[in-house]
Amino acid sequence: VDARIDRLLRASCTRPWTIGLGGGLPARELFPRRKLERAFVAAVRAPDAAALQYGWPEGDLQLRAWVASRLRARGADVAAEDVIVTSGAQQAIAISAQLLLGDGRAVVVDPETYPAALDGFRAVRARITLDADDAELACAYVMPGVGNPRGAATALAGAALAIARRVPVIADEAYAELRFDGRLDRPLLADARDRVFHVGTLSKTLCPGLRVGWLVPPRAFAEAALETKHASDLQAGSLAQAVVARFLDEDDFDARLARARRFYATRADALVDAIRRELPWARFEEPEGGFSVLVDTDLDGDDAALLARAIAHGTSFDPGRLFRASSASSPIAMRLCFSGNPAPAIVEGVRRLARAIGAHRRAQRVAAE
Amino acid sequence: VDARIDRLLRASCTRPWTIGLGGGLPARELFPRRKLERAFVAAVRAPDAAALQYGWPEGDLQLRAWVASRLRARGADVAAEDVIVTSGAQQAIAISAQLLLGDGRAVVVDPETYPAALDGFRAVRARITLDADDAELACAYVMPGVGNPRGAATALAGAALAIARRVPVIADEAYAELRFDGRLDRPLLADARDRVFHVGTLSKTLCPGLRVGWLVPPRAFAEAALETKHASDLQAGSLAQAVVARFLDEDDFDARLARARRFYATRADALVDAIRRELPWARFEEPEGGFSVLVDTDLDGDDAALLARAIAHGTSFDPGRLFRASSASSPIAMRLCFSGNPAPAIVEGVRRLARAIGAHRRAQRVAAE
Repeated sequence: VDARIDRLLRASCTRPWTIGLGGGLPARELFPRRKLERAFVAAVRAPDAAALQYGWPEGDLQLRAWVASRLRARGADVAAEDVIVTSGAQQAIAISAQLLLGDGRAVVVDPETYPAALDGFRAVRARITLDADDAELACAYVMPGVGNPRGAATALAGAALAIARRVPVIADEAYAELRFDGRLDRPLLADARDRVFHVGTLSKTLCPGLRVGWLVPPRAFAEAALETKHASDLQAGSLAQAVVARFLDEDDFDARLARARRFYATRADALVDAIRRELPWARFEEPEGGFSVLVDTDLDGDDAALLARAIAHGTSFDPGRLFRASSASSPIAMRLCFSGNPAPAIVEGVRRLARAIGAHRRAQRVAAE
Repeated sequence: VDARIDRLLRASCTRPWTIGLGGGLPARELFPRRKLERAFVAAVRAPDAAALQYGWPEGDLQLRAWVASRLRARGADVAAEDVIVTSGAQQAIAISAQLLLGDGRAVVVDPETYPAALDGFRAVRARITLDADDAELACAYVMPGVGNPRGAATALAGAALAIARRVPVIADEAYAELRFDGRLDRPLLADARDRVFHVGTLSKTLCPGLRVGWLVPPRAFAEAALETKHASDLQAGSLAQAVVARFLDEDDFDARLARARRFYATRADALVDAIRRELPWARFEEPEGGFSVLVDTDLDGDDAALLARAIAHGTSFDPGRLFRASSASSPIAMRLCFSGNPAPAIVEGVRRLARAIGAHRRAQRVAAE
C-alpha cells in the first residue's frame, strides 16, 4: 500500500462529515445481527466449549460440508474433505501464491484487480504480468462472474478455462454470488478440478468481521495447502466458524443472497445516475454486480493529490494506482463504491467529488500557465 | 507434521474412552463463557456494527493499548501504535520468519521446541540449527519464562539477551504468564527493543478459539511487518477483537492469571506424581509452569509405533520427534500435558501409558530374540 494514500484514507475516516466512496465495505444494514447473536450464544454454551478451544487446521466439518454442497450443486466434484476453511479469502489467495509462485515466477492478472491479491503476489516476490501468453507464466488470478474494482465480468475471467489448460488458476469468487441478474456460472473448478485453486468467502455476502473464507485446492496440492495454512496461523477462528456453521444451519442463504443483490443493485443505480449527472465526461462500465465501479479519466498526474482534494471537499475514493500491477497513477482512475452508503449519501458524495475534480483541473490549468 | 502421527492422533480423538495426554489444550473449565457472551452481545449490538465489519490491518486500538500498557508495566518502551494484533501467536511467528528468514538462512532453537514454530521456519525454507554460534545465524527463537514442551525455563531463553546483541530474537511469551511461582521477568524487548520480535497471545490465558495474538516488532521492521500481516489475511477477526477488548475492559486479568496458575499447578502435581509412580525410570524436568512435561526415555525406535500402542491402551501423547528440528524419533520422548484433563483422568492416563510402554518393551524383546 502506498504510504501517502494510506495516511490520506485513514485521516478521512476520522472526519465524520466525510462521505467515503472508497473502502469497499459491505452494507452493515445487511448484517444479520440478531441471528448471529443467537448462534453465538448457542455456540458458547455448548457443553464441549469447542467454539473457544483449538480446532483442526482444515476447519469446522459442518462449514466445510456447506461449502462443498453449494459447489456440488453448481456441478463441481467437491467433498467436504476437499475444503480448507481460511482466515478470509485473502489467506486463501496468499496460500495459493505461496504454493504456485515464488521468486520471479509470473502470474497474470486483469489490468485492474484486487489490490490485496497484488500484495500477496508481491509478498512472495512473484512477477505480475498482464500477458496471458507470457512464456514464463506460472499461474493466473481471476475473479469469475464479477470483478473488483470494475463490478463487471473481466476478459481474463472469460479466458480462464483456456488458461487453466496451461497453468493453474486462482479463481476468486468473492463477488460471484452478487451479480444483480442472479446468474451464477458453473464454477471454474467444475471443468478443471486439477488446475483450479477455488477461493470463496462470506465477507461480502454475510459479514467480513468473522474472517471466514475457504480454499479448495487441486487434490495434488491438498496436503501442501493444509500444511501452509497450519504454518500460517494454525487454524481459522473456532468461534467464528462455530457461529457461522450454526447460523448457516438455520438460514435460507439463497434468499439472503437474493435480498443482498436487490439491495446493492439499488445502490449501484444511485451511483451510476449520480456519475452520469455530475461527471458526464467519465468513462466506466455499468456494474453487473459487486460493490464498485472504476471511473476512468483523461487526467494525468498524481491520483493521491486528487484524493487529498476530494477529502478536503468531504469525500474520498480509492485511487486507481492501487488496482494496477504497475502502481501507475496516470491516467487517473477512481474506484467508487456503492456498497457502503445509502443512496442519498452516494449522490452527495459524487457531487462533492465533482467539485473536487473541478478544483483539481483549475489548479492544474493555473500551474500549467 | 508427520502424516502417520497426524492420522493416529486424529483417530484417537474420535474414541471417547481415550484419555489424551497430548494436544496441549487449555482447560475449558477456565474459559469465562458468560463474560465472553456478555461482551459479544454488547459488541454485536453496537450501533456501528464494527465487530462485523472490516477493520484496520494492525487491529483494534483498545486491545493494542492493553497489550502495550502491560508491557510498559514490565519495563518495556512500547506504545499502542507499536502493537500488531495477529491471528494468534502462530501468525506473529510466521510474520517474523518471513521478515528474518528465507532460503537457507539459519535460526537457532532449543533442542526441543514448539512444533508449529518449526513448521513456520520450514515454510520459508530456513535452516534450523541448535548452535547459537552458527556462523550464518540470522535469528533466534526462544520461549522466555516457560518453554514448550518442557514446561521449564530453557538454556536458550537464558542466553537470549546475549544473542540479541548479534542477531534478532523472536521472543514467544505464549506461556510466560503461566509460571506457577508467578514470576514474570522483564520482557526481552525491554532491554533490546530494536532486536526483539515480541510474540504474545491470549490462547493459553483466556481461550484459543478467538485467535487473538500480537506481534511487537522492532521499529525498523514495523512497516514491513504490517504489510506482511495485511498480505497474509488482511486483519485479525474484528468480532474476536471486539469481544476481547470489551471483555478485558471489565476483567481483572491479573487475578485471572493467578487463578489459572493455581489451577494448572494442581494438575501439574497430579501428572508429576503419576509419572513418578507409574514410570519410575522416566527422566523429566519438573514443570515450572506452562501446560506440559517432556518425558525422556532410553527407548530407541519408532515413537509413532509406541503412540499406536498407547492409543490401543486408551491414551495418547505427543511424540518427541514433533518437537525436534531433526524430526528424530530416537531416543523416544513423549510430551504429556497436564493442562487439558482433570487430575483423576491424568492419573488413569499415565497408568494406561505405563501398560502400553510395558507391552511395547515386551514386543521389542520378542522381536529381538
